[in-house]
Amino acid sequence: MPFQTINPITGEALPGNFSDASREEVSQACDLAAVAAPILRRKSGAEIAVLLESIAENLMDAREAILERVQGETGYPDGRAQGEFGRMVGGFSAFAAVARDASWVEATIDHAEPDRTPLPKPDLRKMLIPIGPIGIFGASNFPLALSAGGSDVTSALAAGCPVVLKGHPSHAGTCALISEAIQDGLAETGFPEGTYQMVQGQSNAVGEAVVQHPSVAAIGFTGSLKGGRALFNLGALREVPIPVYAEMGSVNPQFVLPELLDQDSEKFAEGLFGSITQGNGQFCTCPGILFVPSNCAVMLAKLAELVDGSTGQPILNEATAAGFESGISHLLSLDGVEMLGRGSLEGAAIGATATVLKVSLADFLSQRELISEEVFGPSAVVVVCPDAASYEEVAAGFCGQLGASIHGTTDELAQHADLIFQLERFTGRVLVNAFPTGLEVCHSLVHGGPYPATTQSHFTSVGQGGITRWARAVSYQGLPNALLPPALQESNPLGIARRIDGAITL
Amino acid sequence: MPFQTINPITGEALPGNFSDASREEVSQACDLAAVAAPILRRKSGAEIAVLLESIAENLMDAREAILERVQGETGYPDGRAQGEFGRMVGGFSAFAAVARDASWVEATIDHAEPDRTPLPKPDLRKMLIPIGPIGIFGASNFPLALSAGGSDVTSALAAGCPVVLKGHPSHAGTCALISEAIQDGLAETGFPEGTYQMVQGQSNAVGEAVVQHPSVAAIGFTGSLKGGRALFNLGALREVPIPVYAEMGSVNPQFVLPELLDQDSEKFAEGLFGSITQGNGQFCTCPGILFVPSNCAVMLAKLAELVDGSTGQPILNEATAAGFESGISHLLSLDGVEMLGRGSLEGAAIGATATVLKVSLADFLSQRELISEEVFGPSAVVVVCPDAASYEEVAAGFCGQLGASIHGTTDELAQHADLIFQLERFTGRVLVNAFPTGLEVCHSLVHGGPYPATTQSHFTSVGQGGITRWARAVSYQGLPNALLPPALQESNPLGIARRIDGAITL
Repeated sequence: MPFQTINPITGEALPGNFSDASREEVSQACDLAAVAAPILRRKSGAEIAVLLESIAENLMDAREAILERVQGETGYPDGRAQGEFGRMVGGFSAFAAVARDASWVEATIDHAEPDRTPLPKPDLRKMLIPIGPIGIFGASNFPLALSAGGSDVTSALAAGCPVVLKGHPSHAGTCALISEAIQDGLAETGFPEGTYQMVQGQSNAVGEAVVQHPSVAAIGFTGSLKGGRALFNLGALREVPIPVYAEMGSVNPQFVLPELLDQDSEKFAEGLFGSITQGNGQFCTCPGILFVPSNCAVMLAKLAELVDGSTGQPILNEATAAGFESGISHLLSLDGVEMLGRGSLEGAAIGATATVLKVSLADFLSQRELISEEVFGPSAVVVVCPDAASYEEVAAGFCGQLGASIHGTTDELAQHADLIFQLERFTGRVLVNAFPTGLEVCHSLVHGGPYPATTQSHFTSVGQGGITRWARAVSYQGLPNALLPPALQESNPLGIARRIDGAITL
Repeated sequence: MPFQTINPITGEALPGNFSDASREEVSQACDLAAVAAPILRRKSGAEIAVLLESIAENLMDAREAILERVQGETGYPDGRAQGEFGRMVGGFSAFAAVARDASWVEATIDHAEPDRTPLPKPDLRKMLIPIGPIGIFGASNFPLALSAGGSDVTSALAAGCPVVLKGHPSHAGTCALISEAIQDGLAETGFPEGTYQMVQGQSNAVGEAVVQHPSVAAIGFTGSLKGGRALFNLGALREVPIPVYAEMGSVNPQFVLPELLDQDSEKFAEGLFGSITQGNGQFCTCPGILFVPSNCAVMLAKLAELVDGSTGQPILNEATAAGFESGISHLLSLDGVEMLGRGSLEGAAIGATATVLKVSLADFLSQRELISEEVFGPSAVVVVCPDAASYEEVAAGFCGQLGASIHGTTDELAQHADLIFQLERFTGRVLVNAFPTGLEVCHSLVHGGPYPATTQSHFTSVGQGGITRWARAVSYQGLPNALLPPALQESNPLGIARRIDGAITL
């Protein structure tokens, strides 16, 4: 069925008609990706870096058109659009550096010992190699940083894997423009067209066809728990099962210690308000639940004031707006959940406004699963606790989350050091005196965590470390030096750190 | 139902009665493991190393009893039993070294830049941490090296994960003795009893209960495709899905180039015969299918002579013996498959004898799926090809395998360099002029590969690299130095290689 995208500020359809890729079209794309895979395998990291840098240039050339389209499709304010555009282009540069550096392959060498007794030791060398075509789903909430040119795409290309991109129907036009810039980059640098292809689709059938195609070796997805789990199950139950790396969101609990509130309640409230409303709450890392001790009155008054005075913003699409409203209504229907503050909404046909709710620890504990469900958008629930002594028990009850923070003074952090262990148990990122929004994209970032935050907690979906999702280990036994991949040749032509005879060596 | 184990040489039951663990017993073991998990998380690598070394000593103390029992339960000759015992004990020492060295956690540090514009950069640090209780299935074919004290167990303990071991019913007594040595080690070094527990079972229900217990975070399995896939599906379809790392065997294709046969056919035949019959073929790495060019007559004559003159050996259990015979019969029923050589069987009530079959390339290609099925035991199929030109096409048709070899002279290897890419596409280990049996256990080993060789090709199940299966990435943002795990503290108290601000640093 043909579809258009909607401007959430005006509620009107944008120019451009899109249509669901047919099963044959998906199949053709996956077949072409399979043809490209062995060609990419023979490209050096330096050649892949040139491709990624060329794409970054093309994206810069198309900057105005992409910004206009993405603002049309999302209602993003200028700053958010420009910031996320920078993050997308920066991702291509960052992964160009990863590909060129080449140390991500975890090269490992164990030399032969032909005279060892009772048996000679063979020469064995190991590295990560690309796994093949990757199906990637554009994420609704980051049309630039996590979609057609997002971190799943850049990391997969950097690993040497072809990509079949399933565009997100809410920003199909943005996906089309980005894909064009990428495809131009392929042509300019001599990469086969199967290296990156896009299929559009509003129907689940399009994505399902990607997951089920025999040539597809893994899936990258950012979105809802329902969608991610459905794709994960499809991938697991194929004749040849494939990993589905799904990042499915989180409520990112915040634990606030009392001395901090005695010292600077207002500043804390401002920081919290900023984090809840950043990107109008459309971040997987939005702090959705907050535990505060009984000396929280000043902080809550300030927070309520900020929230009440805020004006809502456009939100990604109608389904997200409707989900936000019904999520808030559901929370308010629970025992003891009260409104703490709510902004107004103007200037957006499809929007959401900051909303903060309040509940006692007792009422939270008796309904914790219901209260801990993510309400995607600019909202948070404040759980008022008698004191911080309850935090370890509360933390022990959480299932997988992307992040969790402790806020406290130096002294009280030291007293609650064990809480760090409690938080790492269920998260991919533990923060101290910081809110979880605003990912710092770097080698040390983990944007992941135990289920249901993701389907595979070993890996990260954002940051340079994300590249290893698209690779598998191979060892080479007894190969003549000239037949070894460069990363494993004796002279170390790539100049990378390697584990040699057990010890990491530069 | 109670059960006993059988001596395959005499066909008689051995002393000792075992019984299936009930669902409650499995549940208790998993609950205790969950209690142990946070205690293990707080142990240092050095403390875990002391535990593993203490277990190694206990195993050495129990050496005679274990050897006697395992030889009773498997019919192993002395050399095989002693060799595999050494590999088991060596595994504890090797993983003690991995735990003490601590560099396996992939410590990564990105320093803060508080003055960066437009936004300050936070301090972020990342490492791998243990994922929690692991369910491990003892493998029938390596009662020492891949069972109650095998490489899944040693790697999981080294990572800091508690283990619930499901004993293999064919060598339940061996499992019990090894478990005792491990449990004594726990008591001696102050580790909680939930660190390692064993449940016995002949029924599938016991293993299923382990996979389905909510406290279990991952599964390690070595065995059949049918069994591994069933557990993988169970793990994937849990409310909280868990990874099931199953290694499920392989036919490990061998490609022989013509000049090599012109130079030394007899030596090649001897090596091949040795590899097919090593451990009476009860290795996942047995070379089950061999592609030879038309100048193979001398080599095949020698191979047939060796096979015909061989005497069969005991095999692990009745099911394996029956599977071997029916597998051979099935192969012989296919078009153009002929017997090339077969040994005799004496001195074993439950045994198998070396068997080599022959088929033309044309008949192979028209029945390749049927001929490529693994027949577990000392057998191989030789596919006679017109020349080596067909090898790339043949290789392109293989699905996932643990290993594959090319045999050739230096000159012809260089001519067929592209075949390396073909073999790595479907394997975890590419060998040149070597047979795949006899794993060299080291950092560079990959004992893994694309499905159906394993369920997750990113990892290896044997070798030091296997430890990362039991770990997940966590990052710590803005933590005071004293609250960071030692691996990430600024002064590098563990003295490990770390990636700092992008570059690996010693």
